[in-house]
Order: sequence, then structure tokens, then C-alpha cells
Amino acid sequence: MNKPLASIISVGISKFGKLIGKSAREIFYDAFRECIDAIPKFSVDMIKAAFIGQMSGMFEHQEHNAPIYLEWCGLNGVDGFRVECACASSGAALKLGVIAIASGLYDFVLVGGVEKMTHLSTSDVTDILATASDYFFEQINGLTFPALYALMATAHMKKYGTTQEQMALVSVKNHANANLNPKAHMYGVDNVTIDKVLSSRVIAWPLKLYDCSLISDGAACLILTKPELAYRYSDDVVHIIGFGQGHDSISLINRESLTSLKASKIAAKRAYDMAGISPMDVDVAEVHDCFTIAEIIAYEDLGFCNPGEGGKLIERGETFRDGSIPVNTSGGLKAKGHPVGATGVAQACEIFLQLTGKAGLRQIDEAKIGLTHNVGGSGASAIVHIYVGGEFYG
Amino acid sequence: MNKPLASIISVGISKFGKLIGKSAREIFYDAFRECIDAIPKFSVDMIKAAFIGQMSGMFEHQEHNAPIYLEWCGLNGVDGFRVECACASSGAALKLGVIAIASGLYDFVLVGGVEKMTHLSTSDVTDILATASDYFFEQINGLTFPALYALMATAHMKKYGTTQEQMALVSVKNHANANLNPKAHMYGVDNVTIDKVLSSRVIAWPLKLYDCSLISDGAACLILTKPELAYRYSDDVVHIIGFGQGHDSISLINRESLTSLKASKIAAKRAYDMAGISPMDVDVAEVHDCFTIAEIIAYEDLGFCNPGEGGKLIERGETFRDGSIPVNTSGGLKAKGHPVGATGVAQACEIFLQLTGKAGLRQIDEAKIGLTHNVGGSGASAIVHIYVGGEFYG
Repeated sequence: MNKPLASIISVGISKFGKLIGKSAREIFYDAFRECIDAIPKFSVDMIKAAFIGQMSGMFEHQEHNAPIYLEWCGLNGVDGFRVECACASSGAALKLGVIAIASGLYDFVLVGGVEKMTHLSTSDVTDILATASDYFFEQINGLTFPALYALMATAHMKKYGTTQEQMALVSVKNHANANLNPKAHMYGVDNVTIDKVLSSRVIAWPLKLYDCSLISDGAACLILTKPELAYRYSDDVVHIIGFGQGHDSISLINRESLTSLKASKIAAKRAYDMAGISPMDVDVAEVHDCFTIAEIIAYEDLGFCNPGEGGKLIERGETFRDGSIPVNTSGGLKAKGHPVGATGVAQACEIFLQLTGKAGLRQIDEAKIGLTHNVGGSGASAIVHIYVGGEFYG
Repeated sequence: MNKPLASIISVGISKFGKLIGKSAREIFYDAFRECIDAIPKFSVDMIKAAFIGQMSGMFEHQEHNAPIYLEWCGLNGVDGFRVECACASSGAALKLGVIAIASGLYDFVLVGGVEKMTHLSTSDVTDILATASDYFFEQINGLTFPALYALMATAHMKKYGTTQEQMALVSVKNHANANLNPKAHMYGVDNVTIDKVLSSRVIAWPLKLYDCSLISDGAACLILTKPELAYRYSDDVVHIIGFGQGHDSISLINRESLTSLKASKIAAKRAYDMAGISPMDVDVAEVHDCFTIAEIIAYEDLGFCNPGEGGKLIERGETFRDGSIPVNTSGGLKAKGHPVGATGVAQACEIFLQLTGKAGLRQIDEAKIGLTHNVGGSGASAIVHIYVGGEFYG
């Protein structure tokens, strides 16, 4: 295991869901407040830069968002950066935060993500989300995100025999996990069975309503610092020991494969190499399950199983909380919710909670090494981070 | 003068203007190609990260832009980041590029900016640009950007006696400079006089058509590296020796002053301190003249003159090409054009050309130290960089 690049000393996450009457800035503040309140020895004046992921100014007709969050959080004098990488916006923000710490120019940085989506109609949201696909080759031909992932799902079914029941299991698992996470959009929904998934209405075959992630409002924050400063301000520390990023053509038509995301494979290899670990070392992972098929493909691209065996991996129960590699203990995008700009940092928050033993009823015993996998669009971007709990490092 | 943080080895800039039938990705490629072609010893495979400023996905109904530019430029395996900070988007991208070089994680990074605007109606563009102001406190009350800057202009006129003629001089100067810059949107327009500015139609009094910057398409690129690697690939090197960033409330109503941008003053002070120079040391500057009053206020905020004396500074001719501190030799946003996401890097490109003696007919003799000043919105963000020509350093 290699040296940490940066360390997380606190996390905060807003309620995910339909937050009626709350704007992005208010939701962001909720996450920020929780993050800061958890570390009373830390002063907000120590934050010198903020990297904030947000996908689109279209949701609130508001660009130039970073200074708004700085003002709303009382962060005077802080350098603010908004980062956009579609649904991987705050995964990218986290990576930039790590780079900023590595530069030596900043000792403490805030990393966050936010999106406010539920005040618009589903068709408007679908149209805005489609801007993460290619305008010229995809959008104008009417491809929505469910349709893009349906193409991948049918290709995976044809090539590997992956079944609708296996996909449904992803939904069942993630809903069960979300029901143990009070912040989750679907907290309190406790009756998601395979039959319920399979009989839900078709969105883009083979993807049905319960195969799709949620349109949610939400925000997430964390504080990064240098490893040598971390313990001064928090007893709960998680180190980031590797990151990797990959890209591919934005349009599916130019991809080498429909059954795997090249960007994810590149990102994962780089992150594992930097961390000096292998997929077998990962104890808990948050992966980008924007659709159930995406989680199955992620198992394969991240090396949790061989190509084509993702469906069987969940069928064997390996990615459930009591399996060998629990995935999306938070509930994932599927059931925790997917306020797109917030998702990357929210994944990191869950790993922080798991590696510091603070994940409540969904805690995985002896979780030492965690991984997050955040995908932009249909896979033109992917960002992987690898974490180790402070008490297990060194 | 302090140690360089990073060094620019090449720049490229597309034609600025109404580029009919060209999309952002094609315009970006034009700038990238020029940047790369200028350094034959350099291979694009050496680029490992790209920081690209772009303000809004609304112009082309396209977010998730970074991977598009990577693909279009053949930049496989490169980490791509889109940065948004309204009209300071690529100033922020440049700063992140410098941070990335300082981190030691990257040896060569591409920094760019782009916007495609002219295919939309002026009212649609005005509406999109308004997203750089506050939705809740400004946009819904009908404040457009000309109106916001008109409020600053009238405040400046009242407090300091600044005149419409002084503002008009900014336009006259910048148009004259643009007429020596073949890449400028207004290249070839050679009859902009004070009378022409004063008699042009009122947009938001006291700002008239010729007080306003242009709606343009355009892109700009540069390659950053570590100072110690720079001369291997280019004889023309410009070092970045300081940067500074400042923020303020996004809405004017919460500002301490209407006649000065606090964000610019903070950014300038930080940049001067980091560079170890004073305003008097600056030989040539590109400042954010989105409106003529903005250039006058910039003179004051950057310390080129005392508060309230900006109008007199240009009246004395000091910021013309033959003055003591030539400003916006490129033509500025006013006459080179203002494809918003491209502006910050385009400013850096002009300074690179000036400090390497490659600015053609608009070359300033003996220019050693340069400064760029990039503002987001009405001043919620400002980013200043300070540069020294390689032959003058050390």
C-alpha cells in the first residue's frame, strides 16, 4: 500500500430526496454545516480553496455557482472552483482537491457537490441530463440516458447471458441498503422485491422503473488536508491513497465495446497502481449504479469479477452487505438518490463512514480499504478513488 | 521577483468572431492545432491533463465538454477537467493548470477555453450570460449584464466624476489595438472614434453599443510545464510567477462598493505578493473590459492608478500602446471579442506573445512583465496571473 496523497477529516451530507422549497445553495449549506460541526477543533477560516462539482446551470438557471456557495457558507477569502464532468462532476472535484493538497499550495480544502433537480418536470430533467451525451450524434437523435444504458444492457445480455433478474437484484440490494440510511431518498421504502422490479413499468427495455436511479436533490461535502495535519483536527481520518481517471468517446457509436466502459477500466487500473493494491484488497465500494446494468458492468470493469460475470457475482450475493465485497452500502444512486453533481462526493462520504466505523446499521465489519467509482454520462468519463481507514494505515 | 510556479511553452488562439457553421469542438481544435504546431519538438502524447474553461452548457445544449475536446484533439489517456467560473472560467482553468504542475503529479498540461455563442439570438445570449448573476436577487428582477455594469458606471461617475468620454476612450483604444490583431473579432474595423462611441445606441445608460464587449465565438489554448522542462521544447518561454483569486457576493446589492471590485483587489494583492512585484513593475496587461467602465475600474483595482483616477489615466494616454502601461493590446474583450469561456486563456496568450516579442504590429517594446485580469460575472470572481518573459527571468 502506497503513501496517502491527502486525508479526509470530516464529511457531511444533506438529506437526499425531493427537498421542496430548498435551492441548491441551501442544500449545499446543510451538507457543509454537518461536515464542519463534526470537527469542533477545526475552524472554517482554515479552508483556503473549495472544489465543487455541479453538472448543469440549467436546473436553476444559475452558472457561476462557486462564489454563491462560498458566500452562503461564510467562506470569505476562499478560492472557489466549480468543476463539471456530468454525473462525475464531484468525483472530478475530489480529484482536484487531492491535487491541490499535493501541490503544497493549500493545507485545507473543501470538496463538495450539489444538484437541485426535483423542481423541474421529469421530461425537463431528462432533457438536461441528456446534455451529458453528445449533442450532434446522440441528443438530436432522441437518445435519452435510459436509452443509452438500455443499449448497453441488451448488448451485455446478448454477449454474456446477463438476465433481467440479475439486474433486478442490484435494485433489491441497493434499496435494502438505502433503507438503513436515513439520508437516502428511498429510506423507508422497504418492500422492493425482484417481482416488484420486474413488474415495474418499462422505461427503455430491458430497463424498468426500478432499474433506474432517482432524480434527487442533495449535496455532500468533505474536508481534505495533508496526511500529517489530519489528526490535529479529527480522530476519524481516512486517507486517499490512489486515484485514476479515464475518458472515452462521448458517443456510444465510437466506443470499442458496449459491454464495458473503457474509461472505468483505465481509471481503475491507474488508481490501483497508484494505491499499490489489487481489486481483491477492496473491502467496500460505492460504484456508479445510475442504472442496474451499470453496477453489473462496474463489477467487471473494477476487477471484482471477470468480464461477463457481473450478473453471477450479485446472484451469488457477493456484493450484498454480508458478501465478500459489499457494494453501494449507502443505497447507491439507485436508492440513496442521484443529485448528479453531488454523487461523487457522496460516495466518498459513505466510504469515510464505513472506514471510520460510523455507518450505523449498514456498517461493514472490518472495512479497511474502500473504493469509489464515479461515471460521467454513459462512460466518457470515469474517476476512481481508493481510501484506507486511518487506523489501518502504515 | 519570485520563483516561477509553471511555464508556458506555446499558445494557440482561434479566429475570434462569428464563426458560422463551426461548433465549439471545431473552434477548440483550431486553437489547439496552432498551439501544438508552434512547438515541433513537443509531442501531444506528453500532455497528461487538460483544464478547459467554458461557461455554459446552454449555448450548445452540451455539458460534459472536456471529453469532447480530448477526443477531438486526439488526446487519449489525458485527464480532462471542465472548469466554470462565468467569464473567468478559463482564468480559473489556468490557475488549476498551475496548481497541477505545482503538485508534481503532471509534467505537461493543456489549458484552454472556448465558447460558441453567435448562433443564438442576442436575447438568448443575454439570458444565458445573466446566469452569471444571481438568479434570486438579480435575474428574476430583469437585471442584465449591461444593466449591472451601468449601475457601476453611474456610481463611478457620481463618486469620481468619470465621464462618458473617458469610457469612450477605452473603446477607441481597444478597437485601434484590435485592428492590429488579425485574430480579433473587430479586425478591419478602423473608424472607431469618440464620436462614434458616444453616438452609438444606448444599451443601458451610460453604456452604449460601443461601450459593450462582443458576443463572439472563439477558443484559446496554451501548454504549461515545469520551469525546468520548458526550454527542452521551446525557445519561447514565459513563466508564471504569481496568481491570485478573489471572490465577493454574486449580487451587487450585497457588495461594499459599486465603484470597485473587491474580488479584483484581493486577487491582485495576492498575485503581486506571490510574484514579489508591485503594480509599477507591470509592462503590459490584459484586463477584463467586458464594458468600458470595467477597464477603468480595473486600472484602479489593479493599482495602476489611485481609486477614482482610472478615467484620467486613459485620458492621459497611459494605457495606449505608447503609454506607460499599455492595456489590452490584443483589443480586449471589447474588440478582440469575448467568447466568455475562452477569454482568460486568450488574455494569457496575448501576454505570451508580448513577452516573447511575437505580437506583430501591436508589439510593445521591452515588455518584460505582464499581467492578466479575468473577472467572472459582475465581480463575484476575479483571477489575476503575473508573467515574466523567459529571457528576462533570473
